[in-house]
Amino acid sequence: MPKANIKIYELLKRVRENKPLIHHLTNWVTIYDCANIVKALGASPVMAHAKEEVAQMAAISSALVLNIGTLTVDFVEAMKIAARSANAKNIPVILDVCGAGATDLRDKKSFELLDEVKIDIIKGNSSEIARIAGENVLTKGVDATSVKKDMAPVAAELAKEYKCSVALTGKVDIITDGKRTYYVENGSLMLTHVVGTGCMATSVIGAFAAVEKDLAYAAASALAVFGIAAELAAAESGGPASFKEKLFDAAFSLDHKTIDEMQQVFLL
Amino acid sequence: MPKANIKIYELLKRVRENKPLIHHLTNWVTIYDCANIVKALGASPVMAHAKEEVAQMAAISSALVLNIGTLTVDFVEAMKIAARSANAKNIPVILDVCGAGATDLRDKKSFELLDEVKIDIIKGNSSEIARIAGENVLTKGVDATSVKKDMAPVAAELAKEYKCSVALTGKVDIITDGKRTYYVENGSLMLTHVVGTGCMATSVIGAFAAVEKDLAYAAASALAVFGIAAELAAAESGGPASFKEKLFDAAFSLDHKTIDEMQQVFLL
Amino acid sequence: MPKANIKIYELLKRVRENKPLIHHLTNWVTIYDCANIVKALGASPVMAHAKEEVAQMAAISSALVLNIGTLTVDFVEAMKIAARSANAKNIPVILDVCGAGATDLRDKKSFELLDEVKIDIIKGNSSEIARIAGENVLTKGVDATSVKKDMAPVAAELAKEYKCSVALTGKVDIITDGKRTYYVENGSLMLTHVVGTGCMATSVIGAFAAVEKDLAYAAASALAVFGIAAELAAAESGGPASFKEKLFDAAFSLDHKTIDEMQQVFLL
Repeated sequence: MPKANIKIYELLKRVRENKPLIHHLTNWVTIYDCANIVKALGASPVMAHAKEEVAQMAAISSALVLNIGTLTVDFVEAMKIAARSANAKNIPVILDVCGAGATDLRDKKSFELLDEVKIDIIKGNSSEIARIAGENVLTKGVDATSVKKDMAPVAAELAKEYKCSVALTGKVDIITDGKRTYYVENGSLMLTHVVGTGCMATSVIGAFAAVEKDLAYAAASALAVFGIAAELAAAESGGPASFKEKLFDAAFSLDHKTIDEMQQVFLL
Repeated sequence: MPKANIKIYELLKRVRENKPLIHHLTNWVTIYDCANIVKALGASPVMAHAKEEVAQMAAISSALVLNIGTLTVDFVEAMKIAARSANAKNIPVILDVCGAGATDLRDKKSFELLDEVKIDIIKGNSSEIARIAGENVLTKGVDATSVKKDMAPVAAELAKEYKCSVALTGKVDIITDGKRTYYVENGSLMLTHVVGTGCMATSVIGAFAAVEKDLAYAAASALAVFGIAAELAAAESGGPASFKEKLFDAAFSLDHKTIDEMQQVFLL
Repeated sequence: MPKANIKIYELLKRVRENKPLIHHLTNWVTIYDCANIVKALGASPVMAHAKEEVAQMAAISSALVLNIGTLTVDFVEAMKIAARSANAKNIPVILDVCGAGATDLRDKKSFELLDEVKIDIIKGNSSEIARIAGENVLTKGVDATSVKKDMAPVAAELAKEYKCSVALTGKVDIITDGKRTYYVENGSLMLTHVVGTGCMATSVIGAFAAVEKDLAYAAASALAVFGIAAELAAAESGGPASFKEKLFDAAFSLDHKTIDEMQQVFLL
């Protein structure tokens, strides 16, 4: 498979220079880390969920990140209000279908969001994306279960169905807009030993989608950056907590040369 | 007092191999750390509180952890729904009576939970457990106040009253099912300088209760593991934040030999 | 400008000895760090927001910290109940007008709080304070936008209007009760690369206000301590996450000599 001709650092540079505002309606578990990784990359995170203010906050933002990790019915209603505001201004909306496949509520609300507002990027792990694509799989809480199928065509079909991009994270990340498919082989097993790395990846995608209209390209670049930071962190950590500290430090310091040398992004 | 003949590592190994799903309805302050310590030990945490999904999430879990640290009336209702689902499937339910003794609401809701659902392990610090056992003590927010009484018989009576186990954390942890009483002398003073270590201890108990039916044995093993990790961390940290980082790293890496050498669990 | 004759360590010592209970109704993003910095300094944080218990919790506390970072209408109602309880007992109330200037809701609720309860210290960054002082400025989510005006007289006017103290954090912190104005030049640029340092500063102010009736003096001392810890941390960190870890460790360990040597507090 050919390595993608992808200027990842260019996008990171735009994030650092433009400092885009990334509005989140996310879960209460990893909310701090989502904000903090966006900040470490140079963007400006804001978390706001009151139905009275989400439309206004979304409208001054450059990307909107939704994550159903600790959803409630009311919280999803606020997500819809925010998303409609973002949609009206062509601000990209990223949806992390966190825990889809674990409960009926998560499935139902994921589909409601996909049907009632325009989602620009759907993000999930293999069992979450499989579930949203209509497969009969179970997610173990918010952790992926193994899915037998080759997920690239499943993701591509899902992208076509919703006229959006799909970012599936795992050992190899798959990013597709239904036409092109990127494979990102950056990353580290240590990411699976820390809570919230999937959510953080979604927020990083949000930061990159804020500065690049080609959303599959933006999402692939984002996941490469996150994966490279993880590789650098894993190389010098003694466990999941020191790994996480170094992940933020690495994300903050990433330079052009390191990214070009380490990126493992392939395009099909 | 004789050292307990307790195979702590066996239980940790089961956690790592079975990767049990630990469903939490917990507080918004320490929710991340509760999830993350469970993950560091090899289990799979999930946080979900919507009343529409808690029964289903609890039913696919191997333990349910409840913590009233930032309770509301509605949140406790969701706890009851989750607990009834867990009760129906004989999934162990652990209740951290966080802040009992500080406000009437915390006392009232703790008793409601104890009366309306089956709690398998009650967890608290000395003033919280004293309050739940009917003593007239005040908890300073969520921090223990000094309780004059010998708490072991108080905890044992409480265990008998609710036909459950009680885990009281402090300088020496006391774990009892009303018949046997374990004393865990592992731990570090540094645990008192970091927010959330009591909540994390409860989550660790949840992970161990998920793999061992003898719940006093499971809770004692859990607190020994947590305390040993704390001792290892304290030995190489320069303050509460570096201590916390090393606590997670140590929990992730604990091996059989270290546990056997360091465990200070006594059985009466 | 003359260096202030200010006994910062005296106040820190009181915090460590009295271990005051600091009740927070704060945002869900930085809630853990707010609690943890208060704990690192030796005080006892408690987070409680149920309308049924906030009055009682506030009444047993030594300071009440309000932060509208992730406000909802209901949450602000709970803040008012807590604040009225604190007011009745002369317990100082600190309000972080987090994100004022970003949405109408944040402006409206900030003014409601200021009008309906007694706020003793208003805390914000330059654009937040400017907005509360009636300027037509926009806050970028929760990050300050540059304000052209000299903010010291603006803050002093605001302090006079509400008969309170105002703490404006930035490159130089400005603390005023409308008569005296302190300038705190301690701090580090690294604080701007980590989410929640503004919220943490507010909580530190809460801990110091709990032990000193002269609230401008308390707030200036608090920001000096926080800034000194930041300088110490920045000197030995490799990025925002290692900086943050060392910030907590430094706050925990600060001694008299270090504070006296490093403090850069000026009084006008």
